[in-house]
Amino acid sequence: MVSENISPASPVILKRYELLTLGDELLLGLTANGHLTYIGAQLGKRGVLLQRNVTITDEADAIVAQFRESWARADVVITTGGLGPTCDDRTREAVAAVLGQKLVFEPEIVKAIEARFARLGRKMNDNNLKQAYRFERGEVLANAHGTAPGLWVEQDGKVLVMLPGPPNELQPIFAEQVVPRLAKLGLLMEREAYVQVRTAGIGESALEVKLQPIFDRHGDALSIAFCAHQGQVDCRVSSPSGKLSYAQLDEIAAECASLLGEDFMCYGGDSMAKVAADLLRAKELTLAVAETATGGMLASAFTDICGASKFFAGGCVCYSNESKMQLLDVPECLLKQHGAVSAENAVAMAVGAAERLGADYGLAITGFAGPCGGTNENPVGTIYIALHSPHGVWSKKLHYPGPRATVSRRAVNAALDWLRRELVRSARGATTAGGKGGGCR
Amino acid sequence: MVSENISPASPVILKRYELLTLGDELLLGLTANGHLTYIGAQLGKRGVLLQRNVTITDEADAIVAQFRESWARADVVITTGGLGPTCDDRTREAVAAVLGQKLVFEPEIVKAIEARFARLGRKMNDNNLKQAYRFERGEVLANAHGTAPGLWVEQDGKVLVMLPGPPNELQPIFAEQVVPRLAKLGLLMEREAYVQVRTAGIGESALEVKLQPIFDRHGDALSIAFCAHQGQVDCRVSSPSGKLSYAQLDEIAAECASLLGEDFMCYGGDSMAKVAADLLRAKELTLAVAETATGGMLASAFTDICGASKFFAGGCVCYSNESKMQLLDVPECLLKQHGAVSAENAVAMAVGAAERLGADYGLAITGFAGPCGGTNENPVGTIYIALHSPHGVWSKKLHYPGPRATVSRRAVNAALDWLRRELVRSARGATTAGGKGGGCR
Repeated sequence: MVSENISPASPVILKRYELLTLGDELLLGLTANGHLTYIGAQLGKRGVLLQRNVTITDEADAIVAQFRESWARADVVITTGGLGPTCDDRTREAVAAVLGQKLVFEPEIVKAIEARFARLGRKMNDNNLKQAYRFERGEVLANAHGTAPGLWVEQDGKVLVMLPGPPNELQPIFAEQVVPRLAKLGLLMEREAYVQVRTAGIGESALEVKLQPIFDRHGDALSIAFCAHQGQVDCRVSSPSGKLSYAQLDEIAAECASLLGEDFMCYGGDSMAKVAADLLRAKELTLAVAETATGGMLASAFTDICGASKFFAGGCVCYSNESKMQLLDVPECLLKQHGAVSAENAVAMAVGAAERLGADYGLAITGFAGPCGGTNENPVGTIYIALHSPHGVWSKKLHYPGPRATVSRRAVNAALDWLRRELVRSARGATTAGGKGGGCR
Repeated sequence: MVSENISPASPVILKRYELLTLGDELLLGLTANGHLTYIGAQLGKRGVLLQRNVTITDEADAIVAQFRESWARADVVITTGGLGPTCDDRTREAVAAVLGQKLVFEPEIVKAIEARFARLGRKMNDNNLKQAYRFERGEVLANAHGTAPGLWVEQDGKVLVMLPGPPNELQPIFAEQVVPRLAKLGLLMEREAYVQVRTAGIGESALEVKLQPIFDRHGDALSIAFCAHQGQVDCRVSSPSGKLSYAQLDEIAAECASLLGEDFMCYGGDSMAKVAADLLRAKELTLAVAETATGGMLASAFTDICGASKFFAGGCVCYSNESKMQLLDVPECLLKQHGAVSAENAVAMAVGAAERLGADYGLAITGFAGPCGGTNENPVGTIYIALHSPHGVWSKKLHYPGPRATVSRRAVNAALDWLRRELVRSARGATTAGGKGGGCR
């Protein structure tokens, strides 16, 4: 969940960008519109606030009408989808009609498609010849991961970019070819528009109050934007007027980081698990996790990181008491006396995971994520996390309102942040994992 | 990934719906546009193909211009977001200007907001009074989960629905209030427009060929749409002309299900894990899982199901060989001889999980999901799955191309489908888990 008073990353390139995402599967809710998320974020980083995203059916009339409107209004139009080999894909033709351009056959594209099929040991289908057309006054954006290349047109002082729909094809073309071309034309910034300081465990208001003295020294040369999401707040430092150089922005960000201490997580957009993983790897330390209600989400946070086996020993998802006893050596009497949702069990799970798997650190989560479960003492939303480190073991109780997915996500983030802080402290030579906002044991 | 030649669920209500999703956080890619996914799917089920989704900034001028355009073109306009208490939310005013309506203060809304704050032990903020306005010729859609109510207007033969942005507020209002009202006006079907037959393990073309004789008997009274996504294909049976009754559609779906045998998964939209879970629960059987490369995704598939502790004993995410030995009793000599990515290890993991956790079934996945790892014999994308059941244990080798997330998702689906088939067979009294498309051991 993003905070309500999010400010965009002070757009500095005041060009009108429109994104047309084509496909009935988007309008029927069968696939999420990941193109908006990806392209919006990429443009935002380079100083552009996308003005509009329109999703329409891939019917030719709808495409013609919408493209005509967007092309008249915008400086840059980006389309996604509708370039495939099946007969439904009439996007090229529809767009050519509006541009007043012809489509011309491009033998180079056929060669690329044939080479691709040859590598896969298959023969090219005649359908694929449809994909071998480009605009007569336009260029081809090579597609290393699929058959349909992207298309590029500069006309009437505007730019049109057409991209294939599959994300693993679209994203490399966008990052490697489209962004540099747009930057060269002055339609995007040459590098990222802001320096992002990512924080954890501090609220948006408290963060603003703490950093304000730094910001005040720079007056309106500096623009600040905050974005809060589940336990993290990002602070973006930019200079839309260009009065401050990138080196100066970097310095300001470093000053913020230093003032924030442990609440500073990283520059840029790394995940909490990634930051913790880097700290573990730097010291050649290992981690084991154990979880109940979060059901694998804590383990996934680490296993999504490439090369995780270097620091991640493994994890246990323990739903039954039997599994806690069998996998983590949690004593039966402890479960009987305190219950599975207790500080005692969280500690036993963290220690059990670390000891069983021979890891330096053990991180555990137990609780009621809802909607079922919960007791008077520990209602739905109650979470215990525990951390076992070479310096000791601690547990804290947390409570999060909201639906199951929110409770789980916040519990995982709280546990990751606790590990991260302990690793930061340990690197400094300090040895207490007490942390903020939670009772120690 | 949805198949390219998806046909929509034959829309039978030919009304023009437009969805306006407001918010810079969508355009900056900070949050995914889940409203499109949710509302598009809900409308699709009731016979409507959403015509257009436009995402714009929450700046008042942009809202006025876009709403004027959509209101002129559509029969039903739905807006999301921009109803919060902060000063950026000018959506109501912008829309009122286009409608030529006044906003009037509604004391009932204030009462509801006050009652909500009282329940949470907080006092209402003056900002919230902004949310107490409705259109003078319009109604209020009560919000049980937040402060901003939805708004409803019927004017010029059209309908306007304005919904608050948080999904946990929007979705209940839409399902419980908006859908019945629209159906009553004949703008949505009274019940679902189609019967969905969900299948697994059979390709789209093969499915079509197999079911064609059934479809042929009904000629153009029947409309069929297929939608493929990662190992599953949905077949939607509808009668846009109304020549076939719902009872007849149910019969046709049942005939398809019977013809498909084990390839039939369920009616409707349940996940593979849910279907397997229901089969386990019906027989009071339990399951344990063990996984490497999928890093908790297999466990999550089950723990996302409410009440999972009834059938789910637990799971192990084993990255290191140490963890396989410690948690699952995989013999060290087996790992040395065959390696962790092997049929032998998959079997040992499945048996180990079931035995350690005292479960009836054990399901295991090991492999190289990429992008790192892989050997000549077992390149990236190689997956071994194994199933331990009361009747025996089997393993099969699979290979999936694509990025890590795709390989993992498909491996999990393949494992879930294998379990599902074994449970279906076992319920019938058959006892072989050999399955299709994979070697047995």
